[in-house]
Amino acid sequence: MITLTTDFGYHDPYVAEMKGVIFTINPEAKIVDVTHGVEKFNVRMGALMLASASPYFPKGTTHLAVVDPGVGTNRRAILIETKDGIMTGPDNGILMLAAQKQGIKRVFQLVNPKFMSAKVSATFHGRDIFAPVAAFLDKGVVPEEFGPEITDPTTPSYATVEWKGEALNGEVLHIDGFGNIITNINEKLVPGSGTLKVTLPNTTLQLAFLQTYAEVKKKEPLALMGSYGFLEIALNQGNAAEKFGAKIGDAVKVAHA
Amino acid sequence: MITLTTDFGYHDPYVAEMKGVIFTINPEAKIVDVTHGVEKFNVRMGALMLASASPYFPKGTTHLAVVDPGVGTNRRAILIETKDGIMTGPDNGILMLAAQKQGIKRVFQLVNPKFMSAKVSATFHGRDIFAPVAAFLDKGVVPEEFGPEITDPTTPSYATVEWKGEALNGEVLHIDGFGNIITNINEKLVPGSGTLKVTLPNTTLQLAFLQTYAEVKKKEPLALMGSYGFLEIALNQGNAAEKFGAKIGDAVKVAHA
Amino acid sequence: MITLTTDFGYHDPYVAEMKGVIFTINPEAKIVDVTHGVEKFNVRMGALMLASASPYFPKGTTHLAVVDPGVGTNRRAILIETKDGIMTGPDNGILMLAAQKQGIKRVFQLVNPKFMSAKVSATFHGRDIFAPVAAFLDKGVVPEEFGPEITDPTTPSYATVEWKGEALNGEVLHIDGFGNIITNINEKLVPGSGTLKVTLPNTTLQLAFLQTYAEVKKKEPLALMGSYGFLEIALNQGNAAEKFGAKIGDAVKVAHA
Repeated sequence: MITLTTDFGYHDPYVAEMKGVIFTINPEAKIVDVTHGVEKFNVRMGALMLASASPYFPKGTTHLAVVDPGVGTNRRAILIETKDGIMTGPDNGILMLAAQKQGIKRVFQLVNPKFMSAKVSATFHGRDIFAPVAAFLDKGVVPEEFGPEITDPTTPSYATVEWKGEALNGEVLHIDGFGNIITNINEKLVPGSGTLKVTLPNTTLQLAFLQTYAEVKKKEPLALMGSYGFLEIALNQGNAAEKFGAKIGDAVKVAHA
Repeated sequence: MITLTTDFGYHDPYVAEMKGVIFTINPEAKIVDVTHGVEKFNVRMGALMLASASPYFPKGTTHLAVVDPGVGTNRRAILIETKDGIMTGPDNGILMLAAQKQGIKRVFQLVNPKFMSAKVSATFHGRDIFAPVAAFLDKGVVPEEFGPEITDPTTPSYATVEWKGEALNGEVLHIDGFGNIITNINEKLVPGSGTLKVTLPNTTLQLAFLQTYAEVKKKEPLALMGSYGFLEIALNQGNAAEKFGAKIGDAVKVAHA
Repeated sequence: MITLTTDFGYHDPYVAEMKGVIFTINPEAKIVDVTHGVEKFNVRMGALMLASASPYFPKGTTHLAVVDPGVGTNRRAILIETKDGIMTGPDNGILMLAAQKQGIKRVFQLVNPKFMSAKVSATFHGRDIFAPVAAFLDKGVVPEEFGPEITDPTTPSYATVEWKGEALNGEVLHIDGFGNIITNINEKLVPGSGTLKVTLPNTTLQLAFLQTYAEVKKKEPLALMGSYGFLEIALNQGNAAEKFGAKIGDAVKVAHA
């Protein structure tokens, strides 16, 4: 099985071209879209999408992710062999959150033209490099065949959360389709319940830390550990991001109130 | 075969997580998306989408639908055994229009943890309850295994159309992607042709009741029985909802003029 | 394998209904979406999407494309047998760019009701004619079975580019999801490199003609042969269409500067 995560959207033929390439190499492939609605060039958000979805797929799945503002430059193309499967994409951090969750075994640079399209365009490595690589990996070609092992893959800094005094300093990783504000603060950092003091650029909130949206009245705010496994600020049946003027990348401070 | 109908959109990994769960349980599953673009929390629209699409799928298909503003509350999770297949989702009405079309045989409440994820989150039953249930149903587990039969499933009120004097009183069920105004008035209620007097909140129209959009000039209005099997108000190659200021839930009166 | 290209969007059950029809006729079908985000009624854009994606699919693929403002009129329904596979859709030009690339062998009009739905609606031939035809083609029914051969399929004029003096006169075929301006001028017409003078309705640009976006600074403009195999005007990591006020159908003049 192969999953696809990109910022190519749903109005262009790019994703279909990748699928066509995969099926041409491997007619038996089973392809599942994670999402193609990653914000353009937002590598961090692509990394979050892949890290959120990948734990639910069967062992042995090949995950392909392409959010690639540096396509055509000398950024490397890589594959990561993990304890649960394989990931391939540009070496810009997009694979790392998901790969770290699974446990990284080895990282290889993709240089073997045997497993790329005959003509590699400068602008679309998703189709010309990563799709054929994923198709060959899914067919059982071993990682060593694709290129040399490397030990310095790019590791994103945006996954760091720091304590400053009593407060955790993180940031808004994502606004989901419901307007929930997803922070980069995971459940290990803020266990338990009670009341949280949450500071966003435009507001400071005292929020009950609950299990589910419906524990508060319609349109009322709360904090909870959401489906991503990260701390969320949400409104029951409402749009928290709109209400609190929050956007991706905003600083977030969280402390027990 | 399993179909999926949700309001999860195309920018989050939620749908992929459901698919990952299904494939982990049932690697041979064949999954088809009905739509993930149901208006957020609009159970009625989800019900319409499922009721429109489900008649075209093979007998024995398992339909999963999740538009679930009450997730985490004590609303029940159910499956409905019909004459043509099985449907599963929250007990909030989303399954009923489609199930009634197929003919309801029995309804069961989902309570058996054996067919749910090991950890059921309070916020995402689509992934943790309905996806595994659909995967096990598709594998052949019989309805009785999932929980007790119930006789009082929630039945939506929004499917009712009433005669008041000479006019049918219904409402706008849906605005489709072309801007066509889909009412909840089905073809049995307004058979034939001629001219219809259609009253919307912002306008009253005298409309020719025709077979196809192209029977009127470009941008001209008409009434017709559309692809949903419901009365539509449309503009040939234009956006009727925009022109007539119509929105979902608006009252609609229809009479032969 | 069957591919689908439509303007039906992602918020309606239309595409799912087509898939249900295909799977009911041919349970072994493998269906891949090219895109359902073609601009409404924009046959030219549908033709571009199909022409861009189809070269990447395996030989023998059946391509179904429906952007069909004339549905319900007397426009013909056709299939085109090419050197690489088969295409089916309305006879309005949507198939021609892709079919010409593959090499057209024969064209047939679809008239045999044996390979259509029992009840053909006036408004949705995608579901009632083209989906069953694609399913039967994918099962191996030969083109002759569907209707008479025809020799005058509708051929679009929008694929023409003309020399006027030193300049190529074409138009904007498409704005992709990144805001890149895709012209209808292909790589055979402007080979090489250097500097191009590009005239759009709102601006005249002197653009370096390069290999890849990243050869210029962030937000700087360039010209390149993009993934579609057509001349693009782009900004590195920016939205060229927004910046230059370009839209689909705009006239474009290109000359070596």
